[in-house]
Amino acid sequence: MALIVQKYGGTSVGSVERIQHVADRVSQSRRQGHDVVVVVSAMSGETDRLLGLARGIRSDADGRELDVLLSTGEQVTIALLSMALESKGCPARSYTGAQVHIRTDSAHNKARIQEIDGARVRRDLADGKVVVVAGFQGVDESGNITTLGRGGSDTTAVALAAALKADECQIFTDVDGVYTTDPRVVPQARRLERITFEEMLEMASLGSKVLQIRAVEFAGKYNVPLRVLSSFQEGGDGTLITFEEGSMEQALISGIAFNQNEAQLTVTGVPDQPGVAYRILGAVAQANIEVDMIVQNVGADGTTDFTFTVHRNDFDKAMGIVSARAEELGAREVSGDPKIVKISIVGVGMRSHAGIASKMFEALAAEGINIRMISTSEIKISVVVDEKYLELGVRALHDAFELERAPAA
Amino acid sequence: MALIVQKYGGTSVGSVERIQHVADRVSQSRRQGHDVVVVVSAMSGETDRLLGLARGIRSDADGRELDVLLSTGEQVTIALLSMALESKGCPARSYTGAQVHIRTDSAHNKARIQEIDGARVRRDLADGKVVVVAGFQGVDESGNITTLGRGGSDTTAVALAAALKADECQIFTDVDGVYTTDPRVVPQARRLERITFEEMLEMASLGSKVLQIRAVEFAGKYNVPLRVLSSFQEGGDGTLITFEEGSMEQALISGIAFNQNEAQLTVTGVPDQPGVAYRILGAVAQANIEVDMIVQNVGADGTTDFTFTVHRNDFDKAMGIVSARAEELGAREVSGDPKIVKISIVGVGMRSHAGIASKMFEALAAEGINIRMISTSEIKISVVVDEKYLELGVRALHDAFELERAPAA
Repeated sequence: MALIVQKYGGTSVGSVERIQHVADRVSQSRRQGHDVVVVVSAMSGETDRLLGLARGIRSDADGRELDVLLSTGEQVTIALLSMALESKGCPARSYTGAQVHIRTDSAHNKARIQEIDGARVRRDLADGKVVVVAGFQGVDESGNITTLGRGGSDTTAVALAAALKADECQIFTDVDGVYTTDPRVVPQARRLERITFEEMLEMASLGSKVLQIRAVEFAGKYNVPLRVLSSFQEGGDGTLITFEEGSMEQALISGIAFNQNEAQLTVTGVPDQPGVAYRILGAVAQANIEVDMIVQNVGADGTTDFTFTVHRNDFDKAMGIVSARAEELGAREVSGDPKIVKISIVGVGMRSHAGIASKMFEALAAEGINIRMISTSEIKISVVVDEKYLELGVRALHDAFELERAPAA
Repeated sequence: MALIVQKYGGTSVGSVERIQHVADRVSQSRRQGHDVVVVVSAMSGETDRLLGLARGIRSDADGRELDVLLSTGEQVTIALLSMALESKGCPARSYTGAQVHIRTDSAHNKARIQEIDGARVRRDLADGKVVVVAGFQGVDESGNITTLGRGGSDTTAVALAAALKADECQIFTDVDGVYTTDPRVVPQARRLERITFEEMLEMASLGSKVLQIRAVEFAGKYNVPLRVLSSFQEGGDGTLITFEEGSMEQALISGIAFNQNEAQLTVTGVPDQPGVAYRILGAVAQANIEVDMIVQNVGADGTTDFTFTVHRNDFDKAMGIVSARAEELGAREVSGDPKIVKISIVGVGMRSHAGIASKMFEALAAEGINIRMISTSEIKISVVVDEKYLELGVRALHDAFELERAPAA
């Protein structure tokens, strides 16, 4: 018997029928002898309906009252799910974020959880009840309703699991786990049984949007075992996101992530002196353009080349800013390409293995794919290539690292 | 400068446009220098939408979780109205029932208010804010959300007004006040400037459904001056419901109420002995049939006649029960008529004036209207007549008591 926190997103509770289905799954876990806490989102479409009402009142609706409005979405779901559980003979009790004391700061619309008082939940669990908690919302020191921002229900689930010292936090979603890469690109892509938090963070930020990054960070920080499961498919084990690196699969790398929305800007012949990077990127940042990769090579002849990538939508704007700035700096040339992609291999295994990078570059070279930029971190190697090579590159790497085969235990 | 509690019902806040309109009215009161607390219902249709979802889960939805669900309706309205006020430059702050400590008992779906802590509201008012409170809902001792049952928003407004010692509680509705009688029957019917709580209670229970009876009782008990106003019509003063009998209009009677849904049952020749009334009406009550008027005459020859009225829908069922019981009791005959109406004149003035009853009977006799039953209380005289005489009777009485003319001050 374990204590499990389960989280169901908006699509999973998107209709009365789906809520009944979730109630079946929860009852099943309960019958298996587990203590279950369920965190739910608003029914899909409901948050947008409420935002529509708010925008009918004022186009710039935000702050305290928007939170009062939006938090009703999850409140509807907790009531309906509790009713469904009770009608299936499974005693249940619903709580809003405020009722279960999910204390946050006062940053309305994007609050951060500060502390959770699990006493009330523990009492209900001890009474044999399933506890149903509204995700995405909390309450500040003064009793004002706050929301955590979109996707915050994942964070609620993880934070509750941490506060209750749950054995596992299960995130039910519309995919049945984390894959070695996008199965739409590589049909042989394999579901991972386990992945580490660090790998998951790299995968998530690189475009495998299975979980909210904040939730993963939170889970890592508080050592909460996270499991991603399908709410529509029965029986799968999903993917366990764990901090137990020791018991990891012995693979060199775990997965291949990619990002199709990058654009590249290069300033060549910049005088190689302190403050140059700041003077180029400072102006870009001030325009609220997010910069992803940054690469600068060792200079020669007193000048250097400086390259960075931005979201494709920001390309023209960034080019304008950088061109003006380059002239001031006396740079030789500014060039750019909005049609590039980033491909990354991710894996804690590469920490202790040499030769991973060269194996990656070899695989790409064998397919005639030219690498434009390279950037590395401890558990990730990213390359930027021409966008036409995306599928070819991902498949070549998936093959080269034999990701379709489950590693030996 | 006064402290005013204003209550707007579901129709008054039924759309984004109407909420903007309410915000205009509230801002106007604020600009006149008043401190304003606003109580709102769910947008019209919203409670039924939520009930529909609940019934999709289980047909017998009730209890704790139904309250969690339904209370979101008002929460949406308080957020939208506060946003609308803020966007018009009128600082506002919304509160759910729980946030403003509307403490109730734990009778879910029909809770009763026990106490309100007005401290938070007073602080916001002192800060120059309009306070917007969700009607119809509260919180029990353990922090569970409760609802007061349909129409409970009136009660919330009155209870808040009492707790805050407000100068007036204004109920905005779709009529512009309380009339001497139904204007659809008597076009000359006149809006009353004032009416006493007792009269209002008699008018309300007799079919003038302007306000919830519980709210009027509450207002009377705590001496809260209540005013009924139209939320759609500008400029009217509505009707003030007051406890200040001394400053009343000097009218003999204030209004004429009627009830078209009555049916009459008579048992004749019942042995005149103790327990007879109970043995007839006990069986009717056990069948959950509500009895309205009851009249029994002084007996003669050891027998008596016993007449009572029920709702027309219950007539057949009541006839069956009473016929069976009459046989057991050895009564002579049971007769009934489902086509009768009750007409009542109401007024605190009749307390101190003789001859009101005879004036009423005279006016009806002059039109050839036969009176079947008579029942009186201290401030009300009711008669039952054949339903075809409804309009004629009401008009004759309206004329006889000169209700179309405002009384001398």
